[in-house]
Amino acid sequence: MKELENRCDQDMPFLLQYENVAWYEDGAVRILDRRCFPTETRFVTCRSYQEVVQAIADMVTQSTGPYTAVGMGMALAAYECRDLPEAQQEAFLRKASDELAHSRPTAAHRYGKVTGHCLDAALKALKEGRSTAEACFNRTIESLNRRYSTMQIVGDHLCDLIPEGGTILTQCYGETIIGTVTRAAKRSGKHFSAVCAETRPFFQGARLTASCFSDMGIDTTVVSDNLIAWTMQNRGIDLFTSACDVMTLDGYVANKVGTFQIAILCRHFGLPFYVTGLPDITKQTKDDITIEMRDPEQVLSARGIRNCREAVHGLYPAFDVTPPELITGLVTDKGVYRPGELAHYFDGGFQEYY
Amino acid sequence: MKELENRCDQDMPFLLQYENVAWYEDGAVRILDRRCFPTETRFVTCRSYQEVVQAIADMVTQSTGPYTAVGMGMALAAYECRDLPEAQQEAFLRKASDELAHSRPTAAHRYGKVTGHCLDAALKALKEGRSTAEACFNRTIESLNRRYSTMQIVGDHLCDLIPEGGTILTQCYGETIIGTVTRAAKRSGKHFSAVCAETRPFFQGARLTASCFSDMGIDTTVVSDNLIAWTMQNRGIDLFTSACDVMTLDGYVANKVGTFQIAILCRHFGLPFYVTGLPDITKQTKDDITIEMRDPEQVLSARGIRNCREAVHGLYPAFDVTPPELITGLVTDKGVYRPGELAHYFDGGFQEYY
Repeated sequence: MKELENRCDQDMPFLLQYENVAWYEDGAVRILDRRCFPTETRFVTCRSYQEVVQAIADMVTQSTGPYTAVGMGMALAAYECRDLPEAQQEAFLRKASDELAHSRPTAAHRYGKVTGHCLDAALKALKEGRSTAEACFNRTIESLNRRYSTMQIVGDHLCDLIPEGGTILTQCYGETIIGTVTRAAKRSGKHFSAVCAETRPFFQGARLTASCFSDMGIDTTVVSDNLIAWTMQNRGIDLFTSACDVMTLDGYVANKVGTFQIAILCRHFGLPFYVTGLPDITKQTKDDITIEMRDPEQVLSARGIRNCREAVHGLYPAFDVTPPELITGLVTDKGVYRPGELAHYFDGGFQEYY
Repeated sequence: MKELENRCDQDMPFLLQYENVAWYEDGAVRILDRRCFPTETRFVTCRSYQEVVQAIADMVTQSTGPYTAVGMGMALAAYECRDLPEAQQEAFLRKASDELAHSRPTAAHRYGKVTGHCLDAALKALKEGRSTAEACFNRTIESLNRRYSTMQIVGDHLCDLIPEGGTILTQCYGETIIGTVTRAAKRSGKHFSAVCAETRPFFQGARLTASCFSDMGIDTTVVSDNLIAWTMQNRGIDLFTSACDVMTLDGYVANKVGTFQIAILCRHFGLPFYVTGLPDITKQTKDDITIEMRDPEQVLSARGIRNCREAVHGLYPAFDVTPPELITGLVTDKGVYRPGELAHYFDGGFQEYY
């Protein structure tokens, strides 16, 4: 397999190294298990694309990890069906593309972009007698590079919003933005500290975000999710920033559950809330957002240990929706938009992101 | 040891049974380890009053558990020094009373009430040639009974505020009030459901509060601390209620960290927040509140498993302070006060509570 040359993970922490996110090689996709990192550094090996679907559904990888995983899953699907007649290969790849895209519902429209591009690349390779798996792999790396290039511009814009010596609050794991904003700060000589909400039930903030910031030399503090107001009141937060899984044209964002309540706390304390990412042209209003309800068992236990009695119920919506009136700015590759102005993002066309 | 007759834990769940909170017998104090309940039902046995001090500092028991534990600790201290000359027994007991009262700082003024009463009872018994340990034990049970009697009135008032069929949100473990409000509801035929915020880092809401409600037949749901706004928005919460560790005369309350931010969310959603408890005449203003900072390691791990890299910092204030403007009513044994009116609580004297 040949790597494209403009990959940009060289100065990134362990978690953001391309090979650690999801990687196709020799008939298998290897995915870093984010459910236990950094307590354990363990990889899940998938030997069929359905195992990749399951790994994403099980949150072995999350945040932008699935964008890479579904592409690598397409390479694996191509490998799996390589000996079938051409028409059957095409049918197999179309099925794989659809199943990988729908491995989780909330960002299915985005995952589908990656698998769609891989499908196109594979069908072209098939016609030309080249390796379909290699075509999918290369298209996935191209997508990764493209995302990092775009998100570097977003990271640059976000960096401009941080006061010198300031403290930013984040929650969950806004994968690419953590790397790009930190790189932007290093390049421009800006200093900042990070406070990460630990983000129950999977502790992505404590385990993943804090590890990335810390590995990149940022002074990093983790607080539990019930400590946000106290921290805003007592420790000086300059701004709250999060990525998002969906950004609708009417200015709503769906992101990891907890974002909404931190946004409410920001309003109480007069702090700005900047959301990073790109709007989705297919998501016109908040009614186009699908909220995934996950297994409540995760909320009833922590790190695999049950907290609750059998008779107790749990609730686990994976995401919540923050309304435009609680958002200061939507930080995109085209600059910072007020939520009410976001529909203008698509004026004059836009770059392919995946 | 003779028990007083009006103990009122017969219809209470396991966690509220007197013997399980903290119990002196045969030269030892046995304390239910609330750090692992209900995953494990384990007791810590203390063979010196200093071990009781340490157990409270380590949060083996918390909420109102320490009020019982410090009294039982006084019985143990009396047992420890029983063979010393009278003057040395008195000195030993005074030292024990002081150390037990200061096992944790935020509610030291309250713990000291119990140890002070036990000290008085022990010194009287000493003079009269009776068992000092038994005097301390009996005075502790008397204090427990008195607290339950008072808190039953508070529980009755809180029950009146819950709409029939309503859903209440709580956080942490408001020990006596959980039992008394549920008993009040059962007696008056009122039905309600409970949503418990899990309350990081110790998960008291998930482990203790939810177990109590569930054991008493209440439909109980646990949510993680970042799920509060989503739950208020999507699942219908009628009111938020919490106990408090300190209630100042100017209407501020110190309670388990997280209370403050739920109060802010209540204001956003227009939901009432009722705080149960009694004001402290020695705590005139919020400046009289001491906030205990605990070991941040607790926030950097969960159920004993570390989430964070070594270089990452943590913060763990045990309590936060909610201002009067976010409180709908302070539910006391004398009725429901608006925060601005609380100074009138002491008009015409008040009953001893401990």
